Amino acid sequence: MSELRKDPILDHWVIIAAERGYRPSDFKAEVPMAYTGAGCPFCEGNEDKTPPEVFALRAPGTAPNQPGWEVRVVPNRYPALTIEGGLNRRGLGMFDMMDGVGAHEVIIETPHHERHLADLPVGQVVKVLIAYKARIEDLRRDLRFRYILVFRNHGWIAGASLSHPHSQLIALAITPRLVKEELTAAREHFARKERCIFCDLLNQERALGERVIFETKHFIVLSPFASRFPFEVSIFPLEHSHDFTLMGSEIMEDFARTLKETLLRLKRALADPAYNFLLHTAPNPVPRPGRPEYWGTLAYDYHWHLEIMPRLTRVAGFEWGTGFYINPVAPEEATRFLREVEAED
Amino acid sequence: MSELRKDPILDHWVIIAAERGYRPSDFKAEVPMAYTGAGCPFCEGNEDKTPPEVFALRAPGTAPNQPGWEVRVVPNRYPALTIEGGLNRRGLGMFDMMDGVGAHEVIIETPHHERHLADLPVGQVVKVLIAYKARIEDLRRDLRFRYILVFRNHGWIAGASLSHPHSQLIALAITPRLVKEELTAAREHFARKERCIFCDLLNQERALGERVIFETKHFIVLSPFASRFPFEVSIFPLEHSHDFTLMGSEIMEDFARTLKETLLRLKRALADPAYNFLLHTAPNPVPRPGRPEYWGTLAYDYHWHLEIMPRLTRVAGFEWGTGFYINPVAPEEATRFLREVEAED
Repeated sequence: MSELRKDPILDHWVIIAAERGYRPSDFKAEVPMAYTGAGCPFCEGNEDKTPPEVFALRAPGTAPNQPGWEVRVVPNRYPALTIEGGLNRRGLGMFDMMDGVGAHEVIIETPHHERHLADLPVGQVVKVLIAYKARIEDLRRDLRFRYILVFRNHGWIAGASLSHPHSQLIALAITPRLVKEELTAAREHFARKERCIFCDLLNQERALGERVIFETKHFIVLSPFASRFPFEVSIFPLEHSHDFTLMGSEIMEDFARTLKETLLRLKRALADPAYNFLLHTAPNPVPRPGRPEYWGTLAYDYHWHLEIMPRLTRVAGFEWGTGFYINPVAPEEATRFLREVEAED
Repeated sequence: MSELRKDPILDHWVIIAAERGYRPSDFKAEVPMAYTGAGCPFCEGNEDKTPPEVFALRAPGTAPNQPGWEVRVVPNRYPALTIEGGLNRRGLGMFDMMDGVGAHEVIIETPHHERHLADLPVGQVVKVLIAYKARIEDLRRDLRFRYILVFRNHGWIAGASLSHPHSQLIALAITPRLVKEELTAAREHFARKERCIFCDLLNQERALGERVIFETKHFIVLSPFASRFPFEVSIFPLEHSHDFTLMGSEIMEDFARTLKETLLRLKRALADPAYNFLLHTAPNPVPRPGRPEYWGTLAYDYHWHLEIMPRLTRVAGFEWGTGFYINPVAPEEATRFLREVEAED
């Protein structure tokens, strides 16, 4: 069982996943493990190499954990958190901790090993989004969890350990610090102005224009004003919505097309860079003590979005120790390059 | 001129150093540049390959920018910030920005190319600390600067571009977010308890014992309770002190010995890992408007310390997007390994 620990000075939590049993010598030569190739546990036909699936979109008549699926969700074989047990929140003097309870799942995006998410047909990307939505909705029913984080690591240096296209999902008993800061900023802005801070931001970005990469009917893709990394990109729904899972099917198809086009532009402009993306959506409803049928805030003043961070530069001590970043590419410059690149499939 | 930009949602600043003129193709194959070898601008005899020195400890009778130095401080040839000009603080709707004014200097720790800081004699480490102190004191006189950050990148993946032993220093017009959070926590704790939060923490860690790697007369070296990275280490002065520059010579010598021993233990336990270290000390005094002779708070309730972060794991999307870290090595485990390693030079 891993442990969640809160820093006694700063407001951040860490998962101490010591169970993996690392020794100092494990770190002496971290080299890419077998990253592609045969025996991939995510390939069709190798379903027995993963834990049993918790969700799949599959051809009619095919059985779970057998071939015939289009998207498949399985628990992570090496989870940072485990699903069983209570949180066991406890303190020791200045220290706060709880048991490492949560879910850690893998969304296998396609049966085909070599197809980048950017290269999948829009219909297949929609299926990946349907899987995100289904898993978030299911895990939200578990009252221990406060936040469901969907993310994707593409490329070895971005943290991927297997090259078969996949995303991940972690269900957490706490809301992560950066998300909480966004939620607080949104709440305070709404209290003052009765407007969404992100809607205001999008309004300003559309008026200024210089950081808008492209727009679709329902989405805007832009380089954030204070991008921490070169070619950082955010995708926002144009119409206010706090919750990713509330998207109807027309908007979801537009989002799939927008996501695919964004990833394709990055892939072409930067020669298939490693990247991470993260879905920022509203936290789970919080039950009131003793009255689980009454839910706390759903953070209606939040505005869901997806953040994409290409991993092009090394991050040095300066950034780690201060939360203060140096970005060598102006977001306006990045916008120009990403606008110009050919985006047709 | 680079630009400082504040995120319109989150409380963080970014340096947009677009002057370096990167193009997307620059990122296509980031490979280590010539990292060691001849023509090193930091080696003795190559003083003309750096901007003129701003500080040096040198043999009597030797001239500036000539051989004969033991420690030498020069402006960074590719500074993220520039020293001339006013801050030009300005806003545009929801955006806050200012000119990229600041200092960016390199502390060359020894004339010898191949000597790791951990391998230098204690007397030489003292000289490096004297240089840190002298530069902080000098730059604090510049009323545009709020924070002087001293840091060290060791190894390519930790961000070092040259292997010759050196530290860096950046003088900033803002206090970085993580330091500000520490300052706020210290101030709030002091307001409530009239005690330093770090002193309380050290007291608890000494009572529990399991994360204390070693102690000297004046310093304690420990693995933080909520370490974000494997083998993260912090060094604190045992006696409360908010400001690194107030150390007397006896304490400074003890700190040099402590720092050297800590780096040596990491080097031996982890086969010379890449690492970053950062000095966290009190921010600069703030002049009152119109009355530069009156200084604002000196943050007496802060407690200076040095944070060392070995770079052993890849940091994935999960961490970037949430501020929530997964650490595969329990700090107590790291402590045991670092205690056991042979630390004599």
